[in-house]
Amino acid sequence: MSAGTKFRQILAKNGLVEAMAAHSPLSAMLVAEAGFDAIWASGFELSAMYGVPDVSVVSMTQHLDMTRAMVERSGIPVVADIDTGFGNAINVLYAVDQYERAGAAAIVMEDKSFPKVTSLIADGRQEMVRIEEFQGKIEAARSVRKDKDFVIVARTEALIAGLGQDEALKRAGAYEAAGADLILVHSKQKTPDEVVAFVKAWDGKAPIALVPTAYPQMTVAKVRELKKIGLLIWGNHAIRASVGAMRKTFAQIRKEGGIHGVESAIASVDDVFDLQGMRKVKDDEKRFLR
Amino acid sequence: MSAGTKFRQILAKNGLVEAMAAHSPLSAMLVAEAGFDAIWASGFELSAMYGVPDVSVVSMTQHLDMTRAMVERSGIPVVADIDTGFGNAINVLYAVDQYERAGAAAIVMEDKSFPKVTSLIADGRQEMVRIEEFQGKIEAARSVRKDKDFVIVARTEALIAGLGQDEALKRAGAYEAAGADLILVHSKQKTPDEVVAFVKAWDGKAPIALVPTAYPQMTVAKVRELKKIGLLIWGNHAIRASVGAMRKTFAQIRKEGGIHGVESAIASVDDVFDLQGMRKVKDDEKRFLR
Amino acid sequence: MSAGTKFRQILAKNGLVEAMAAHSPLSAMLVAEAGFDAIWASGFELSAMYGVPDVSVVSMTQHLDMTRAMVERSGIPVVADIDTGFGNAINVLYAVDQYERAGAAAIVMEDKSFPKVTSLIADGRQEMVRIEEFQGKIEAARSVRKDKDFVIVARTEALIAGLGQDEALKRAGAYEAAGADLILVHSKQKTPDEVVAFVKAWDGKAPIALVPTAYPQMTVAKVRELKKIGLLIWGNHAIRASVGAMRKTFAQIRKEGGIHGVESAIASVDDVFDLQGMRKVKDDEKRFLR
Amino acid sequence: MSAGTKFRQILAKNGLVEAMAAHSPLSAMLVAEAGFDAIWASGFELSAMYGVPDVSVVSMTQHLDMTRAMVERSGIPVVADIDTGFGNAINVLYAVDQYERAGAAAIVMEDKSFPKVTSLIADGRQEMVRIEEFQGKIEAARSVRKDKDFVIVARTEALIAGLGQDEALKRAGAYEAAGADLILVHSKQKTPDEVVAFVKAWDGKAPIALVPTAYPQMTVAKVRELKKIGLLIWGNHAIRASVGAMRKTFAQIRKEGGIHGVESAIASVDDVFDLQGMRKVKDDEKRFLR
Repeated sequence: MSAGTKFRQILAKNGLVEAMAAHSPLSAMLVAEAGFDAIWASGFELSAMYGVPDVSVVSMTQHLDMTRAMVERSGIPVVADIDTGFGNAINVLYAVDQYERAGAAAIVMEDKSFPKVTSLIADGRQEMVRIEEFQGKIEAARSVRKDKDFVIVARTEALIAGLGQDEALKRAGAYEAAGADLILVHSKQKTPDEVVAFVKAWDGKAPIALVPTAYPQMTVAKVRELKKIGLLIWGNHAIRASVGAMRKTFAQIRKEGGIHGVESAIASVDDVFDLQGMRKVKDDEKRFLR
Repeated sequence: MSAGTKFRQILAKNGLVEAMAAHSPLSAMLVAEAGFDAIWASGFELSAMYGVPDVSVVSMTQHLDMTRAMVERSGIPVVADIDTGFGNAINVLYAVDQYERAGAAAIVMEDKSFPKVTSLIADGRQEMVRIEEFQGKIEAARSVRKDKDFVIVARTEALIAGLGQDEALKRAGAYEAAGADLILVHSKQKTPDEVVAFVKAWDGKAPIALVPTAYPQMTVAKVRELKKIGLLIWGNHAIRASVGAMRKTFAQIRKEGGIHGVESAIASVDDVFDLQGMRKVKDDEKRFLR
Repeated sequence: MSAGTKFRQILAKNGLVEAMAAHSPLSAMLVAEAGFDAIWASGFELSAMYGVPDVSVVSMTQHLDMTRAMVERSGIPVVADIDTGFGNAINVLYAVDQYERAGAAAIVMEDKSFPKVTSLIADGRQEMVRIEEFQGKIEAARSVRKDKDFVIVARTEALIAGLGQDEALKRAGAYEAAGADLILVHSKQKTPDEVVAFVKAWDGKAPIALVPTAYPQMTVAKVRELKKIGLLIWGNHAIRASVGAMRKTFAQIRKEGGIHGVESAIASVDDVFDLQGMRKVKDDEKRFLR
Repeated sequence: MSAGTKFRQILAKNGLVEAMAAHSPLSAMLVAEAGFDAIWASGFELSAMYGVPDVSVVSMTQHLDMTRAMVERSGIPVVADIDTGFGNAINVLYAVDQYERAGAAAIVMEDKSFPKVTSLIADGRQEMVRIEEFQGKIEAARSVRKDKDFVIVARTEALIAGLGQDEALKRAGAYEAAGADLILVHSKQKTPDEVVAFVKAWDGKAPIALVPTAYPQMTVAKVRELKKIGLLIWGNHAIRASVGAMRKTFAQIRKEGGIHGVESAIASVDDVFDLQGMRKVKDDEKRFLR
């Protein structure tokens, strides 16, 4: 079964796909272990992992390689954040082919112009492409996928760019008409009101995707009540948990002049061995080393 | 000033270089931020980040690329864990040239045979190369470095392999004679006794390097009392802190059906923006975007 | 249909798979264009392309990435030269999984020890692994492939190492017993006598693979007369043709002080545009750019 | 001495830097062997090597990695073709830092919008950025280089885009004013008239760079007569020579049913061994393998 089919089956069965961000195969494995339905191969998390801003400097090669490794190690559907599609519709043709080959279940493509600026930054430059241009990119994505179950999510940044509800709805409708399977609407309001209003006004058939980073009061339960949501993405909690923990652990080691105090608060070496599959290595050594 | 010179200056000034493990540019930046002297570009951490066992499956290309990125983003000396040198002395010639070009300050090379098995695993296969063979590898490393300050650390796994104190001392002496700048002695005993005995018996001029993962009671203060220690490596606390925190955060989100409960315990999105340099992006946009 | 199945169908239909070496997607495309059955993703060619000796310094990552790109661009089965399997049986488990995922039809693994030295060099160090050890590696490869049609070719260097016909036959038999689908026997004799004698003496069921670089008088017709040959590999003619042509072209430009004299002897810019698919780009621009 | 300084010294001494295109470390080594002054790390050649169109689908990561490897293996200055700078001025800041770290002597950046379309294609979409925007990109490049000798070449596509001589001169002047070290003017006219007219009309101090692919009658001697030319780039003859030779060699092998007929026309295996440095490997084995 293809990754796209698997994604659609989860959606059909559960009524919602709940995805958690990851930035590495290890974090993707922990997402799967925790019971989330899917991985969000986040451009923001990967940029952060490389220590660079989320402004289209991490290359498609870097993101694609990490997506492929996350697919291989996690075993659950991976939703690839391909930003703007790395250029125009011609780049989209190339990108979608590559992500499908890499085993992704879905891509999310946004209607900002390349190079993008991360969405949640205050006063960020947020330039949009024209509706027709983005429809062309969606059609390009559809035309190149080999598996019709490969999921194409169109993301509108109309609310992020401050263009208002009408523009967001207009764009969402146009993107569905162009063939998008889901519509992601992003908002940086501190409350869910803006996206809730969008969802209520939405009369398309395509399920909605949400990324409630800015409005954490939006729970799974509330999302289910909205009915029309098909994909819920927790957008950056893997990297934020890691940053917080490394900072705390490093500071304590510096302060105490040693590692004795942090041992109980962090994963053990054996925990990491288990994640890496060291038991299987030992079994394999017995089977195959002579 | 070269990275190797910088490393040697810290050693001369502080009497000890204290290094913390990292597996990504982000974790390397946090190591620098916390005030450690150097980065340990750990093979174990990188293997774990890729979700694979630490048995020579992560390639030199993968480790080298990450080392280069850590050098670029952290601004402090990076000590590269090159395992066995990725093969024999011919591979070492190639590897050392590449790591020096990548901006590393030092390499640590161990006297196990390729492919290696991670040192701290219980009942692991721990095969050593002959002393003369490893001397050839050290001489190869010395011959190829362009900067005489580039640091070559010879790591003996004699204690890990259960070969005893005499063999460890014999190897350490032979490696110093072959030109190693420092000698790393590794142990998986749960107390520091084994390495303390080694250090006391060591009569070479080369400083000793320690990785007290198995014996966390070994503090910076105790290391300083031993006098002969030049490099102290905290071997895997970046990845262990990250694993612990992601597990905890993911579990809480799953349990609570939302992210509202974890917000205060993890780094904020703005913290991550700061690490990524989003302020500089905004300044740069003002200066250069027209 | 999987790449392995495609390879087996060609073998069944034609009685022989004729493969040409490549070192890049472009050379792979030209192999397909010329009508060969398959691509030989040669370690020697890729090492040469990187300007480094064929002694296990090009990493699995580099070779795997190029293999994947050749699969994507050529459309015909790719036979991946994985040298020794990049280490022991544990490395083989990892490597075979990765090459199968990358879309290769087959892997060729040789019974030399890692790190290898290229086979055709005069007076080269040619160290072999024990028969049992290599059987373990073959069994590892078999156990990890997901598609039973994925082809595992065991390559014996017994003749290259000067161990003689009996040892070569013994090893070939042991490798077939361990599950190899084909047996590659390599020779650096300047005539085909050595391999012809091997083929005549071979009483296994596994087809033989030959790489007649050293004995170019071995034609396709002669190979067919031997009956038992399933795979014929032209081992390095893509890179050798390229080197010869670049040298000649560069020298002429230098001598003539310009490019006017070489134009008619080299491919035109339009030829390259055609290979790159520029016509499709123009069509796609009309369809998708708005 | 930095690569940029070396480039400037050649220019000062010879009055002209003559660069030949390359797409791999091997082709770069052959460029150096032939006596050219510098390598042109061509985006067109690398795109062709990957079998994809030259329309911004090859990523910066791929081009940067190849540039670094060409620097390491060739020993002569490498002029990196960074197309549009991979985005806007923010991307340029990142790119120039990376190419300088990779050891390039110079970058050439063009005033087309991202994603670009290859210049010499008939009826190609050739969209330009505004003059002020490109000045910002040049200033970004200047501000981020660490070595003031690192060479920044501004390339105007005004003639390619059909905007005429005045616009080309206006842009060239504006780019010099913004800090470009050289001005590359590109043309697809079948005679040199257009660029000769440009050069004659140019009254700036920055030397001109030419890429006479479309007008091969432009020789080194004629370039020297024009006086104002500092950089002459033979843009794609490495890949075109390789394509022609592989096609011819493959076709002959197919036709003759064997490799016997092509041996004398292509480089020998020993030639390739020499390029790879197999002699040094043998010496190194004697020195370091025990």
